[in-house]
Amino acid sequence: MSFPNAQQSKLSPNRQAFPLVNEFILKSKLLRVGVKKQNEVTVIDCGVQVQGSWEAGVLFAAVCLGGLAQVKIHWLDFSGFRWPTVEVVTAHPVQACLASQYAGWPIKNGDLTAMGSGPGRAIIHQGSLYDRNGYEDYSKTAVICLESEELPTVAAVQYLVEELGCEPKDLYILAAPTASLAGSVQIAARALETGLSKLAVLGYDLERIDSGWGTCPLPPVAGSNLNALGRSNDGILYGSTVLYNLKDNDETLDSLVNQIPFCFSREYERPFIEIFEEYGDFYNIDPLVFSPAEVWLCNLNSGRSFHAGVLRPDLLRNSFGI
Amino acid sequence: MSFPNAQQSKLSPNRQAFPLVNEFILKSKLLRVGVKKQNEVTVIDCGVQVQGSWEAGVLFAAVCLGGLAQVKIHWLDFSGFRWPTVEVVTAHPVQACLASQYAGWPIKNGDLTAMGSGPGRAIIHQGSLYDRNGYEDYSKTAVICLESEELPTVAAVQYLVEELGCEPKDLYILAAPTASLAGSVQIAARALETGLSKLAVLGYDLERIDSGWGTCPLPPVAGSNLNALGRSNDGILYGSTVLYNLKDNDETLDSLVNQIPFCFSREYERPFIEIFEEYGDFYNIDPLVFSPAEVWLCNLNSGRSFHAGVLRPDLLRNSFGI
Amino acid sequence: MSFPNAQQSKLSPNRQAFPLVNEFILKSKLLRVGVKKQNEVTVIDCGVQVQGSWEAGVLFAAVCLGGLAQVKIHWLDFSGFRWPTVEVVTAHPVQACLASQYAGWPIKNGDLTAMGSGPGRAIIHQGSLYDRNGYEDYSKTAVICLESEELPTVAAVQYLVEELGCEPKDLYILAAPTASLAGSVQIAARALETGLSKLAVLGYDLERIDSGWGTCPLPPVAGSNLNALGRSNDGILYGSTVLYNLKDNDETLDSLVNQIPFCFSREYERPFIEIFEEYGDFYNIDPLVFSPAEVWLCNLNSGRSFHAGVLRPDLLRNSFGI
Repeated sequence: MSFPNAQQSKLSPNRQAFPLVNEFILKSKLLRVGVKKQNEVTVIDCGVQVQGSWEAGVLFAAVCLGGLAQVKIHWLDFSGFRWPTVEVVTAHPVQACLASQYAGWPIKNGDLTAMGSGPGRAIIHQGSLYDRNGYEDYSKTAVICLESEELPTVAAVQYLVEELGCEPKDLYILAAPTASLAGSVQIAARALETGLSKLAVLGYDLERIDSGWGTCPLPPVAGSNLNALGRSNDGILYGSTVLYNLKDNDETLDSLVNQIPFCFSREYERPFIEIFEEYGDFYNIDPLVFSPAEVWLCNLNSGRSFHAGVLRPDLLRNSFGI
Repeated sequence: MSFPNAQQSKLSPNRQAFPLVNEFILKSKLLRVGVKKQNEVTVIDCGVQVQGSWEAGVLFAAVCLGGLAQVKIHWLDFSGFRWPTVEVVTAHPVQACLASQYAGWPIKNGDLTAMGSGPGRAIIHQGSLYDRNGYEDYSKTAVICLESEELPTVAAVQYLVEELGCEPKDLYILAAPTASLAGSVQIAARALETGLSKLAVLGYDLERIDSGWGTCPLPPVAGSNLNALGRSNDGILYGSTVLYNLKDNDETLDSLVNQIPFCFSREYERPFIEIFEEYGDFYNIDPLVFSPAEVWLCNLNSGRSFHAGVLRPDLLRNSFGI
Repeated sequence: MSFPNAQQSKLSPNRQAFPLVNEFILKSKLLRVGVKKQNEVTVIDCGVQVQGSWEAGVLFAAVCLGGLAQVKIHWLDFSGFRWPTVEVVTAHPVQACLASQYAGWPIKNGDLTAMGSGPGRAIIHQGSLYDRNGYEDYSKTAVICLESEELPTVAAVQYLVEELGCEPKDLYILAAPTASLAGSVQIAARALETGLSKLAVLGYDLERIDSGWGTCPLPPVAGSNLNALGRSNDGILYGSTVLYNLKDNDETLDSLVNQIPFCFSREYERPFIEIFEEYGDFYNIDPLVFSPAEVWLCNLNSGRSFHAGVLRPDLLRNSFGI
């Protein structure tokens, strides 16, 4: 297996994310996060026992992307409907989104049920696309992000130390519930990753993807984690736009583009929560469901761009309750 | 009286703003501001005898908010009309906007007539909502922001030193006229504060307000300070959108939301300058007049959101002369 | 000749840009740029032999503007069409855009054919408006930006050292092709400069221009440098909005504003590539062709604003192939 770019592959998402983890520690009060040592492991609570903040969510997302992407929030027009949006831009889409950010590690240990994501995954390849992208991070420091309603127990922390094979003092755990300010931001920051995951599921050669830029509306915090899961995913399914630069031939992209956005799914126009309840478990859902609303494929070989999908502010407003 | 959050209350807006004040000093030429010592007090002129800049206005606003909010400028669509906008986002709305930013301190001393705002107000509670929010800043360093056509005289500086009870060397005074680049930005950055002030005037329990995000169009610099006052306030009344996360019951918010935006005022559709001239003095104006154009209340308890108000690009363009 | 502002004129674009040049070196892997020493000169490849990135383009543009402007990228609505945009804001428009950024130095040396721009131009006035703006940079460090399909040869580097009259170790050369990610960004960042250049061509007194803010859509990377040149210029001609604060009388501005945007040119509605091919050489093109699509002139003397021009998303989409 060849690496897309030897120079890139030397960037460690765990080490790249580390200065951002330190920002959490230095600005904990401003960000309203809680930082505590559990044995020697650093646990950063971004919304479980504390309130957290949108700003903490931006930093959570940046950490989760292995420090390899820029994350910004601002208001944007969605086909006539103005609403806060999250933007992610990266020149390292596969390392940032798939090796690191992708929430491919379902963690169940005692009381802890969490979706694990973040740079730590690049160390152990849990739920990663290692076989596909061959990316591996040799880092002493490990950073793992949990979408969870609970902080990890002592036993769960010990489990993570062992899984990640690091010294306790070198492990940093971030946690935020789905239904929290930080949770809303960090999930909306997954639009670009969602498009890449879909491309992976479709069997597309990820080495052809050069860079990406995604926007996604920021859902208001829901009253329950279940509703938050619904809103966050509806935000991506009906409100996100992703743009990838890639190197391919035009015929392939012309046909590929129509396989990516959600509007071509048989589940289209349904709220995500309905789909979720049908499948019963997040990790059982047909992976083809997870899709951006709108996609641009820009071919660096030919200069031609391919577009599919549409924003649905009507369904978005319904799901967000706005 | 209980504090909303013991952890938050330890963040001192004067100390948080201090690194930003230093940025003025380090980047004075780039920002086109004047920095001088008057006795031992540092006076930073952002637009009185110098030209200042939009960027200086962004920093002025961030200082004025006690370093507890992010301030950004970018172009945005206002219902079909593209124009520069100012965004403010904060996880500390009451401390940032009301204890610090609110222009509640009318200063008259000899030649100096100014609206006083900024973190220094949190030390002495001049025009603050101290009785309501119980927030007090014990800071050796004091930073005060003046909306003023003049730089403070030696006597006025001495008066501020005494009022703030600090050593002259620990006092930092920022000044910008209403009709200046920095003035335009720092006033447009008050949309979020305006909504909070209105909620305070309506008797709403401010401890319920968790966080906020506001956008407001940036008025072009007017030909006179009086016209600038008109434009800046019209920008808020007819062009601003504010969003608050809060914890309450849905019935209360459903009724509250319609009391906030300007469209429900009997002064609606009038230019602010007319209203101002009727009252004769800024501090005599019915406090219910000061309102955002559009408001979202997002209930963190229930996940429901409540909306009222409307943007009026037609009135905005008229007021801005664009 | 008088200087617009003695304080401003002391800001050296080469020294201001230097910390940004260092950012390239420190973040080379993240930005996907190549940094190498050629003799003692530092050559930073932003897209010739490496892929580069949009983020590298933002930094390239900021360097090219002499560190005197802020450069940002985000999605924005263009009259109903959402697309990535580049924003440039500056309180030093003439020094940043004309003395530094303006691509007024056609470099031909052996194998190297490049458009030279950036702060180095302020040292030697190649293609600068020195006679008009009297701005000169006395800097030991020199930074030059090349829009080029090739990295400079040893001979070309030696030529630049001699032209710039600096020690080899003090020379920093940035290079990016027109058809590259960084190239797309750095050209779209020229909308504000394009408006200023047009004002200069029209004979307008540049000392009257106080500050500026421009937005321009970011073209997708084209398949050839010729097509990239077409797209980039169409982006400015049909998609850019520029706003200048200036001090003048209203009558002058009312008449001036209609001379600036491209819609009043006899070449209007043609793709730039057609115009280019007619003239045969970039530097032969009628300088009145280079124009923003839409312009706002905001008079700081009177508070009145003047507008002309229009965005043409239809022509833009056609040119961008989107």
